Amino acid sequence: MDQKGYRRGSFQSATSDEDMLEIAGASMDFSMADDDPPLDREMGGFSSYNGGGMNGTSTMMDFLEEPLPGVGTYEDFNTIDWVREKSRDRDRHREITSRSKESTWALLHSVSDAFSGWLLMLLIGLLAGSLAGLIDISAHWMTDLKEGVCLAGFWFNHEHCCWKSNTTFTDRDKCPEWKSWSQLILGHGEGAFAYILNYLMYVIWALMFSLLAVLLVKGFAPYACGSGIPEIKTILSGFIIRGYLGKWTLVIKTITLVLAVSSGLSLGKEGPLVHVACCCGNILCHLFTKYRKNEAKRREVLSAAAAAGVSVAFGAPIGGVLFSLEEVSYYFPLKTLWRSFFAALVAAFTLRSINPFGNSRLVLFYVEFHMPWHLLELVPFILLGIFGGLWGAFFIRSNIAWCRRRKTTRLGKYPVLEVLVVTAITAILAFPNEYTRMSTSELISELFNDCGILDSSKLCEYVNDFNSTKGDDLPDRAAGPGVYTAMWQLALALIMKVFITIFTFGMKVPSGLFIPSMAVGAIAGRLLGVAVEQLAFYHHDWPIFSGWCSQGADCITPGLYAMVGAAACLGGVTRMTVSLVVIMFELTGGLEYIVPLMAAAMTSKWVADAIGREGIYDAHIRLNGYPFLEAKEEFSHKTRAMDVMRPRKNDPPLTVITQDSMSVEDVETIVSSTTYSGYPVVVSRTSQRLVGFVLRRDLIISIENARKKQDGIVSTSVICFTDYCPPLPPSSPSVLKLRSILDLSPFTVTDETPMEIVVDIFRKLGLRHFSFSRKLLGIITKKDVLKHIAQMANQDPDSILFN
Amino acid sequence: MDQKGYRRGSFQSATSDEDMLEIAGASMDFSMADDDPPLDREMGGFSSYNGGGMNGTSTMMDFLEEPLPGVGTYEDFNTIDWVREKSRDRDRHREITSRSKESTWALLHSVSDAFSGWLLMLLIGLLAGSLAGLIDISAHWMTDLKEGVCLAGFWFNHEHCCWKSNTTFTDRDKCPEWKSWSQLILGHGEGAFAYILNYLMYVIWALMFSLLAVLLVKGFAPYACGSGIPEIKTILSGFIIRGYLGKWTLVIKTITLVLAVSSGLSLGKEGPLVHVACCCGNILCHLFTKYRKNEAKRREVLSAAAAAGVSVAFGAPIGGVLFSLEEVSYYFPLKTLWRSFFAALVAAFTLRSINPFGNSRLVLFYVEFHMPWHLLELVPFILLGIFGGLWGAFFIRSNIAWCRRRKTTRLGKYPVLEVLVVTAITAILAFPNEYTRMSTSELISELFNDCGILDSSKLCEYVNDFNSTKGDDLPDRAAGPGVYTAMWQLALALIMKVFITIFTFGMKVPSGLFIPSMAVGAIAGRLLGVAVEQLAFYHHDWPIFSGWCSQGADCITPGLYAMVGAAACLGGVTRMTVSLVVIMFELTGGLEYIVPLMAAAMTSKWVADAIGREGIYDAHIRLNGYPFLEAKEEFSHKTRAMDVMRPRKNDPPLTVITQDSMSVEDVETIVSSTTYSGYPVVVSRTSQRLVGFVLRRDLIISIENARKKQDGIVSTSVICFTDYCPPLPPSSPSVLKLRSILDLSPFTVTDETPMEIVVDIFRKLGLRHFSFSRKLLGIITKKDVLKHIAQMANQDPDSILFN
Repeated sequence: MDQKGYRRGSFQSATSDEDMLEIAGASMDFSMADDDPPLDREMGGFSSYNGGGMNGTSTMMDFLEEPLPGVGTYEDFNTIDWVREKSRDRDRHREITSRSKESTWALLHSVSDAFSGWLLMLLIGLLAGSLAGLIDISAHWMTDLKEGVCLAGFWFNHEHCCWKSNTTFTDRDKCPEWKSWSQLILGHGEGAFAYILNYLMYVIWALMFSLLAVLLVKGFAPYACGSGIPEIKTILSGFIIRGYLGKWTLVIKTITLVLAVSSGLSLGKEGPLVHVACCCGNILCHLFTKYRKNEAKRREVLSAAAAAGVSVAFGAPIGGVLFSLEEVSYYFPLKTLWRSFFAALVAAFTLRSINPFGNSRLVLFYVEFHMPWHLLELVPFILLGIFGGLWGAFFIRSNIAWCRRRKTTRLGKYPVLEVLVVTAITAILAFPNEYTRMSTSELISELFNDCGILDSSKLCEYVNDFNSTKGDDLPDRAAGPGVYTAMWQLALALIMKVFITIFTFGMKVPSGLFIPSMAVGAIAGRLLGVAVEQLAFYHHDWPIFSGWCSQGADCITPGLYAMVGAAACLGGVTRMTVSLVVIMFELTGGLEYIVPLMAAAMTSKWVADAIGREGIYDAHIRLNGYPFLEAKEEFSHKTRAMDVMRPRKNDPPLTVITQDSMSVEDVETIVSSTTYSGYPVVVSRTSQRLVGFVLRRDLIISIENARKKQDGIVSTSVICFTDYCPPLPPSSPSVLKLRSILDLSPFTVTDETPMEIVVDIFRKLGLRHFSFSRKLLGIITKKDVLKHIAQMANQDPDSILFN
Repeated sequence: MDQKGYRRGSFQSATSDEDMLEIAGASMDFSMADDDPPLDREMGGFSSYNGGGMNGTSTMMDFLEEPLPGVGTYEDFNTIDWVREKSRDRDRHREITSRSKESTWALLHSVSDAFSGWLLMLLIGLLAGSLAGLIDISAHWMTDLKEGVCLAGFWFNHEHCCWKSNTTFTDRDKCPEWKSWSQLILGHGEGAFAYILNYLMYVIWALMFSLLAVLLVKGFAPYACGSGIPEIKTILSGFIIRGYLGKWTLVIKTITLVLAVSSGLSLGKEGPLVHVACCCGNILCHLFTKYRKNEAKRREVLSAAAAAGVSVAFGAPIGGVLFSLEEVSYYFPLKTLWRSFFAALVAAFTLRSINPFGNSRLVLFYVEFHMPWHLLELVPFILLGIFGGLWGAFFIRSNIAWCRRRKTTRLGKYPVLEVLVVTAITAILAFPNEYTRMSTSELISELFNDCGILDSSKLCEYVNDFNSTKGDDLPDRAAGPGVYTAMWQLALALIMKVFITIFTFGMKVPSGLFIPSMAVGAIAGRLLGVAVEQLAFYHHDWPIFSGWCSQGADCITPGLYAMVGAAACLGGVTRMTVSLVVIMFELTGGLEYIVPLMAAAMTSKWVADAIGREGIYDAHIRLNGYPFLEAKEEFSHKTRAMDVMRPRKNDPPLTVITQDSMSVEDVETIVSSTTYSGYPVVVSRTSQRLVGFVLRRDLIISIENARKKQDGIVSTSVICFTDYCPPLPPSSPSVLKLRSILDLSPFTVTDETPMEIVVDIFRKLGLRHFSFSRKLLGIITKKDVLKHIAQMANQDPDSILFN
């Protein structure tokens, strides 16, 4: 049997030629995977699974008591059948429940089975939280390593080093134990030469980190690159990518994430943390039979793991659950909601007890505002929303264009060089500017910060008039020279971030988008905030300010503008809505600030949607040709099933198997001469009445097994899919009974059904294929549907690569 | 035509006799509705709707350009077909989009159509918030009216009255302007006679309020009683109850809710607020064609309105959205999530700007805790969870038993008397005990409260040792005599609340369950909290306390115990999970307290589920026989479609209509001799191949209309459902073409399909009926499925009353 031949067949949706093209396309997409077979295939993949209650959607108490290994599993780069997986789990559950009455042991088994989901969530939360803490601490240390080293112990980061210091010093950040590279090598830190030395060390460290990262990714886990969210979305929708969530991906992604973040590239750790958490979830699934053996159940766990990932990334458990629900999950039953919440909470509290930032907060940029905002400020907030939407749409277009170029030209062949060049440019441009030199999360933290009276940062260098100050409440003040310098530097930082991020996202290192997007928005927001503040200070007699912003009052909080801007830009890029607002709300803790955030997020989404419908993740899914059926978009064309189903008018008739008249040889000929993943079984060639559906993979495995182990099965044996096989003359070879692998409940609709309904059915039930009744007229697969949608949207239908 | 005869027919699932029984059953359930036809039928109902793009699920450009009024609408007490409604909306959307290119006017129309959803949400938020504020203020005033009156103006409540007072006084609550009834009548408030007079006035006011409430409900809006959540769940799942969300229900429910809460009955306003918000949503839908004319779109709006209702009830917008998602909604696309959030937020901010409690909080029982909790405290928290679960299960059983008794015995015939008796008992028992005399939300607020140094309440009468006090942080102290008295009173209050609530919920007045459940839990929690606190104070040397609770430290917060207890009891009764925790989190504002809340909610749900699977709302849905297909419960039996579908083995064959050979008379005979709501259309009697499905209502309306308006249609006219009708001899009467009312895409599966999959399809696609292929074998309706589920769960299948 040609094992390779049926590796990636599709349901009768394409001719053989098309199929070969697809396989070629697929190999190209996963070229690194094919060049270097990932080490994590065995464990991380979905293959270690054999049988279980393999009933499928049919009732199969009959023949095969012990299911064959492999029957009921899936090939790599294929889509699972949710209905089959779910009914298999129900069968399993039924069996355990019915057995539980028999003995105490079985009862215990049933109870432990019921609680295994919760235990799994606990473990995922603990592991994801610990890994996030580890990543935070390491990245913090290594980022500081680019600038200097701690004499009290090289493993201390700058802040930690200065805590340990006993001597008093005026500037909190300048302690004798912390030496910049020039201080260490030259003995002093002043002068042009010291500056150049520090500059050089900064660039060298950055290059070293990013080189190591890209080599590790290329060498050990090609799937560890990128943010991972597009792929996780696709996997959660039912696609199988072996090794994408395996243990090697986990290890390499964790290490390279730290390296990539520390190298100072314009990327964040938040998206990849979702991937890391999903890897944890997938690996921990192997501890429990219930989840190891069922693709649908496993995906429930992955949804919860994604929530835990966002929870630790932003310190926002509720936001994480909503993110998982809104953005990444496909099938999200309510039971999963509750469990995801639990996992997210455990993860957050694990991270908190690790306390990576030493402030018992989960993120660096947690902030508390004190002043209310005024209704008129909605105007600048909405302006920020418009900016966010424009930036989002611009970023998505440019990034996709660049990624397409990388895919199609020779550029894609030199990933290491690309990473090094981008790192070098980033580091060279970043060092001279204080706001790009610091890590992006520190920058965001500083931008969000509401200037207190003791803040020493340049952004807070206002002209103080201590007579009008009461307590900790500072009135609006005139900006000092420090603020004006900061403004210029921030403007330059903004321009740099805007362009460099386009080239960074999509390189062969782990790279998240949240933090760079937020940084762009936060800079723009802070700039606008300071501008409005100064306007209000100098012109508090203008009609728009009178009544709510008198002289000496604190009316404008530039930090809030930064936060609103961050939300707007993040919204423009990802098109998140509720989860975005809730994540931001959890960062501030004040219900009051939801309204500005919501106004900005809403405007941003509308503006961005008006320019291009897709968010960055969907755009990347389409770029990679993953078979993802978008649940949010309505199918709005007026076509009918008959326009989509195969065979078309001039095609050869559907390849079918009859229920009790074909021999083993006939079936083998059909299987080897076609590449379809499954075949309808009909009563007879003349009646064409549909009996069921049989999958290619199951068929091959069953025949192979029967030939080896069952007596009297030869090429002329008749294959029988019915309950009672017709009696044969005594001389003929024994019959091969295969009812157990037949799916007796294939879905059927009439060919007059509008495609919008067909699409809905595919989405909601998670099917792979579909028949047409009134005799067997034809068949539609998920891939046909996706191609049809692409065609209707004037896109290339051949961009859908997998089934 | 017998208009009554087909009023509530069912799909071919029951014989005529059964049907009559059902109608009788229905009339009994809605007996008040049938006795007094609700006034709000015209406006509040779903009937004012005629046509639109009535394409159904089929493609119907053909014959009837102008759809007939009534075709495509539903009868009262019937279930909508989600697929049909949704594709109708898509048709509408397509038409508007395609027209928008033609003229500026059409473009504007298209833009306004797109934004009408947001405008509607804004209006719902504003209206729901305002009504909630109105209810809060009125209920507060009327509750105080039972105890006395303000001389400065009778419209001031006690607190407001004392604010207005200029004189200083020691006790904040005792100001000269506020006179208790004895002070007003006797001139003094001391002595036994004054006490008895106050007692009497309290009982009389309570009786007056509740009498007025029950009379208003009985006389004007029978649907205004109860909490409304079970019915709203059912309506959101696709059922139609005309007038349930109409303007009269809104007006009467708002008024009677204030009366019922003020009467001191053991009920809350939180559940009914959801009903009020849904009424607002439904009424405001009439302003927009898009929502007025489409049942599915309207239900999206209602989901959002429910979120707004919870948002104002608990001041928890995020919790409200999650409540709508988790508890009440059936079909909740992500677009709705974002809009619900918007509506919930607008409602919350409207309520906040009304500021009904004068503390710029949305609820009376908002609280901020300052002390962290210790891991060991999880033990009492879990104990509270167990208590909550037990109370929940006990409450549900007793309440359902009592409500069933009310339904089946003569008790149900005297609703006014019942309300008066329960009010009298409640008032008589409540007055002597300070903690039951105050309104339940005030009680909860006091129980949640963390004792500050200036708190004058009895619960905070600790033995103060001012030497060890630093700032506002109070250490654990010995309980004073006030605390011990309070403990006794609270224990008595607990017993009273536990029993009286069982008889209160389900009476013919608006009554919510949240507040009484929370009160029970809060009392139990506070009792336990004080006990643990005293234990820790007197025995801080015990090993369990050593290490975290040294002498003079503040380690136990009894208020937190009260809150955890409230969450546990609410969880036990309603089986809410995520939304419960999020609502409670929004009440405290501290992420830290999520863990105790979650532990208690989880334990409570597990304990309660172990005793009985159903939450109170599901139990009431089942008690009333609503056709609700639970989305959370898995169907776990191993039956197949052939076991459920009609006709059964010995039944007469399926009543079918042929596509082009039946005359008008034949069809009219079929319609009048059966009560089914729809008929399959087949190619011919012999082939039985399914062509489509036609609804009884559409058929009757179309034939009636054709006979009136179309020339040449007589009893012998042939009805033709095909595209091209066969040519007839010239002498024969003209053909009645009815392809436009034919649903060309009926769903089909094979009869071997396991029922679990059939159930899944009904749930996820929101179908009403279902055919079986391999020729037309039979049919299953939603009602058949529900009956089957009931049968499998050993319940009476005839309890499902509607289709």
